[in-house]
Amino acid sequence: MKDLESLSASQAAKALAKREIKAADLLLSCLDRIGQRESTVKAWVSLSKENALARAKALDKGPIKGILHGLPIGVKDLYDTYDLPTAYGSPIYANHYPSTDAVSIALMRQSGGIILGKTVTTEFASFKSGPTTNPLDQKHAPGGSSSGSAAAVADLMVPIATGSQTAGSIIRPASFCGVVGYKPSFGKISVAGVKSLAPSLDTLGCFGRSVEDVALGVAAMSGDHGLATVDDLHNKLRIAICKTPDWELASKDTVSAIALARFSAESIAKGKVEDLSLPKTFDHLRESQTRIMLSEMSRSLAFERDHYSKKMSAQINKQLTDGAMITYAQYSQDLDHAKAAQFWIAELMNNQVDLIIAPSAVGEAPLLKDGTGDPIFCRIWTLLGLPCINLNIGSGVNGLPVGIQLIAGPGKDRFLLSTARAFALALPDPVLRDQA
Amino acid sequence: MKDLESLSASQAAKALAKREIKAADLLLSCLDRIGQRESTVKAWVSLSKENALARAKALDKGPIKGILHGLPIGVKDLYDTYDLPTAYGSPIYANHYPSTDAVSIALMRQSGGIILGKTVTTEFASFKSGPTTNPLDQKHAPGGSSSGSAAAVADLMVPIATGSQTAGSIIRPASFCGVVGYKPSFGKISVAGVKSLAPSLDTLGCFGRSVEDVALGVAAMSGDHGLATVDDLHNKLRIAICKTPDWELASKDTVSAIALARFSAESIAKGKVEDLSLPKTFDHLRESQTRIMLSEMSRSLAFERDHYSKKMSAQINKQLTDGAMITYAQYSQDLDHAKAAQFWIAELMNNQVDLIIAPSAVGEAPLLKDGTGDPIFCRIWTLLGLPCINLNIGSGVNGLPVGIQLIAGPGKDRFLLSTARAFALALPDPVLRDQA
Repeated sequence: MKDLESLSASQAAKALAKREIKAADLLLSCLDRIGQRESTVKAWVSLSKENALARAKALDKGPIKGILHGLPIGVKDLYDTYDLPTAYGSPIYANHYPSTDAVSIALMRQSGGIILGKTVTTEFASFKSGPTTNPLDQKHAPGGSSSGSAAAVADLMVPIATGSQTAGSIIRPASFCGVVGYKPSFGKISVAGVKSLAPSLDTLGCFGRSVEDVALGVAAMSGDHGLATVDDLHNKLRIAICKTPDWELASKDTVSAIALARFSAESIAKGKVEDLSLPKTFDHLRESQTRIMLSEMSRSLAFERDHYSKKMSAQINKQLTDGAMITYAQYSQDLDHAKAAQFWIAELMNNQVDLIIAPSAVGEAPLLKDGTGDPIFCRIWTLLGLPCINLNIGSGVNGLPVGIQLIAGPGKDRFLLSTARAFALALPDPVLRDQA
Repeated sequence: MKDLESLSASQAAKALAKREIKAADLLLSCLDRIGQRESTVKAWVSLSKENALARAKALDKGPIKGILHGLPIGVKDLYDTYDLPTAYGSPIYANHYPSTDAVSIALMRQSGGIILGKTVTTEFASFKSGPTTNPLDQKHAPGGSSSGSAAAVADLMVPIATGSQTAGSIIRPASFCGVVGYKPSFGKISVAGVKSLAPSLDTLGCFGRSVEDVALGVAAMSGDHGLATVDDLHNKLRIAICKTPDWELASKDTVSAIALARFSAESIAKGKVEDLSLPKTFDHLRESQTRIMLSEMSRSLAFERDHYSKKMSAQINKQLTDGAMITYAQYSQDLDHAKAAQFWIAELMNNQVDLIIAPSAVGEAPLLKDGTGDPIFCRIWTLLGLPCINLNIGSGVNGLPVGIQLIAGPGKDRFLLSTARAFALALPDPVLRDQA
């Protein structure tokens, strides 16, 4: 069998479960692809070739272990792995070998997943880029902080890879690389064993090439295996477009993407899709998100700052200094602001709106030299703790992907996945419908 | 100066800040006390004598570093420390040397605290006891899971020590050992770097010999330094006694403790203190807490179970098996139940009741052979995420301490500390008033 690396995670998982393909062959196809492309894409920090192949062969001989049986997985190098070094994107941890897997990784292995290697993260999942390029145009950035995972999945190096989002680190790179990125509801996946940046915000998730792929990944990572089965949609949907208070920052490409999204939304909603205006108090929600993130970062990285500040970038040292200058009273006020907004949005999404569509990013991927891109269109949704999925909706002036995000009410992950698949199936471009 | 080890943390901190005593002398007094008593109490897993003494001397010479300047601290061996081994109460991690401090420990060091050593925890903070005895009567248990920390503080080995609570692991041992235990609001202290048991429940906190001590500890651990100053109470208080749905399990000692607490409560409330009856839906809240804990444990310890189940006790292996049998649908329903109850109690405590008084434990410390004691009277308060403080209110039939817990609304930690101090000052026994 050829081109196994181009199978989506859900296609591969089905074929593996029926023993139509071998885990070892799929793994070798992925390794081939990595061999051809890694010098350009630079998505990987480490690879576990021998161990992964041994495990693949064992899985081919043994019983079906679970929903990820035989699937190769890329793991963001912010997650602890007991068998591969884990550097959190920082030279401080260059030779760090954790003794345990992150909880979500142990659960992926329990479901039969094969950890193929660790993917590039920015420094402590903040803004200092790693070497990864955008696989669609190597002059451009893949986005951050889950740079390597988004690029590896986009480039067919691996069908699925893990990410984490504190501001916009799943949705933004997914949009830039043209893959499906899924940040589930806050707290859905245990963050234990993943380097902590801002505990009130840190959310784990994954990348795939279809909605079914990311459903599979988060099902395994959370232990909510029912999530892997994406239901059909039956009920009438109430969808709203939310341009957010930062709409003026959206590029023409993002403006067009939202217009395109409206058409597909109206076809699945079977009616007109209105614009949602957020209450005035939401205007400063992204500043609250930024302050909460910086304030918590200054505590989360206190050990590193005290012991190794010279091994940290000027960028992150500045963030830590800024964070330490935010008063606890201001930080508490921001948490209260977030809580009130969470309450408001939960009420709205229980009673009036089932699904929100919003921009994923300002526009196409920026040039490599310009960094990881602005997470501005993700900040408030992360703070609100809502489940979000990025879908690719077309391409921009440079021919690079432009995404939009679908957002459901808190805890409504299962509904979000169903809606995202229905939405993808309603897209006019047949290639984009493959994201279903 | 003599008997430095008997100073409370806040007394010592004040004397250290004024350079009236030396950190090195305080440390040596604590080490002397440990030398005399450790063979009986068995509170410590490891001690950092040389490093701690070197640091104490450096602090004596240097500027005042922060609110814990020069204070020796016991750290529950569930918290990572970069300079001491960390075993989580399990032989699996017998030779585990983390590369980083838990966030809360790094923050305590930033505030000038001296990590004196690691204290005994039960196996992964669950029910399998370590060797620690109750310092007041070595035939009896200190309670768990923060066994060593509670015993060490009670026995004057250290003025302050850290704990964690997933069911009743701070409040219960505090009650059994007759010390002040403080579990702040859920999320107040970052859990990063502390072995995860059940992420929806795990809450860090500390033990001291007065309300001011635990205020100091949690102020440093959370970064909310304002918390260290315990305010005077001015407003009229609305206090309610909550016997909880498990009142029939309370021993005579606990029944008397609640009756005694009512007197002091009425003196600070300046009026009659009513009983709070919880809504019918709260009747099964402790079962929800138990299932959430077991279900999350089965995921949190997936790695250990897959790799080292033979090094785990029969007790915890059974918990993990039980946890894995709880369906995700049941678990989700329990989380929804918790969320609804959290909403109800927040409303109540915003509008009608400022402070709840409830039992801390069934009664006095059980015999060593009978384990760590039942956390039943703590389960719902942990699930509700409310800040709780244990105060010793007298002694029971065996002459061992009996505590009650004061509970405030979510996030109202500062208020809780003020109230707890006022309450302690209103106790009839002058010795117990030292807890203020």
